[in-house]
Amino acid sequence: MAEPRPQPVQAGDAPSDATVPKVVVSRLSLYLRELQRLEAAGQETISSGQLGAMLGFSDAQVRKDLGFFGQFGYPGVGYRCDELIRAMRDILGTNQSWNVAMVGVGNLGQALLGYRGFGRQNFTITAAFDADPGKVGEIVQGLQIQPLTELATTIRDKGIRLGMIVVPAERAQEAADSLVAAGVDGIVNFAPVTLVLPPHVQNVGVDLAIELEQLSFAVTSKLTKPAAVASPDDPS
Amino acid sequence: MAEPRPQPVQAGDAPSDATVPKVVVSRLSLYLRELQRLEAAGQETISSGQLGAMLGFSDAQVRKDLGFFGQFGYPGVGYRCDELIRAMRDILGTNQSWNVAMVGVGNLGQALLGYRGFGRQNFTITAAFDADPGKVGEIVQGLQIQPLTELATTIRDKGIRLGMIVVPAERAQEAADSLVAAGVDGIVNFAPVTLVLPPHVQNVGVDLAIELEQLSFAVTSKLTKPAAVASPDDPS
Repeated sequence: MAEPRPQPVQAGDAPSDATVPKVVVSRLSLYLRELQRLEAAGQETISSGQLGAMLGFSDAQVRKDLGFFGQFGYPGVGYRCDELIRAMRDILGTNQSWNVAMVGVGNLGQALLGYRGFGRQNFTITAAFDADPGKVGEIVQGLQIQPLTELATTIRDKGIRLGMIVVPAERAQEAADSLVAAGVDGIVNFAPVTLVLPPHVQNVGVDLAIELEQLSFAVTSKLTKPAAVASPDDPS
Repeated sequence: MAEPRPQPVQAGDAPSDATVPKVVVSRLSLYLRELQRLEAAGQETISSGQLGAMLGFSDAQVRKDLGFFGQFGYPGVGYRCDELIRAMRDILGTNQSWNVAMVGVGNLGQALLGYRGFGRQNFTITAAFDADPGKVGEIVQGLQIQPLTELATTIRDKGIRLGMIVVPAERAQEAADSLVAAGVDGIVNFAPVTLVLPPHVQNVGVDLAIELEQLSFAVTSKLTKPAAVASPDDPS
């Protein structure tokens, strides 16, 4: 006899997160942000077609993506914005609040400390560390910058589970090692370098040039494509 | 008779960019970054399976994504890193250099002026503007901050085609209108607001909280999943 195996997913059941492709998860964030804007504007329901159109995806793509996580819409109504927002935040883990420790408080770190978008999604930077003795003790956005020697105890005392690395590339691995030793579960890395981490620590890298590349693609492909606008003597 | 229509794509031909889903384009940036790291480390070739494994995609996904743009690999060899890098930069439009105008030089703007990752992908911020008279004339990262009144002439004189908006949300639309009036082809927007732009201007929004959401998803789903590690009394 074959050994017992995980049950196949039943229609209507949400499959386990292990089977969800990363790109689907990244689209969840996009859906969530559009839904949050719609809700703020007072819209109560939305169809998969409308939600997709706001992001350049098909309605089928939206339904397929959401289908990874369960059944959400109502026939003839579409999705209720508030319900779908709550469901997506449950999936993404942002219905709970997260304390984040920042390592490196240069210009980018200071900007990120003031970035209001984090708080809106339930992330709070509750500790910030820098190796520069000239910065330690300084108060940025209401937070006193601490020396790296206090990292481990502060992370434990404040129940911090996520780390944010904002140091230069050559200091990033060292910062990551300190965060791992202090027991964080995940690291978001703004330094342009790939970190070596133990498998139990989750890792997301941020590359700010990617958005510019996407823009240059859009501009380039627009300029090399035949014009989409009909000319005056076009019979159609 | 039906009117003449665009020819269907032949096997081996690259389809027009108009048919490429946005998510595929965003994966191109990820592939490119891994290839650039590999090349810097001296690796000459890579298979679709290896490239996919570095990013958590299947080899089929890699081949399908690249297939949108043409034929790249060699049977039994895989892809040549240098060739694929050149091809992807051609597709993304970053084999040419791009001049970028920044509007808003607060903390985030200053950090972005110093971000080395832009130059590596051929983007150079060649002009920076701020509404604050106290900032105008200041030199940040070698660039003298200009008043907004000089935006239109500077963009024309320097041949700038991309704009980067780094102002607070409530000033973003105004900054976008100025950039559009000055004739830019595309805008990357760091302000947490959706811009209204004419259809000929391309637009990419940056939401720095998305990376944290992806991380909280990874951490949450890891913690709620059955442990992948066998416990000592597990017979398997």
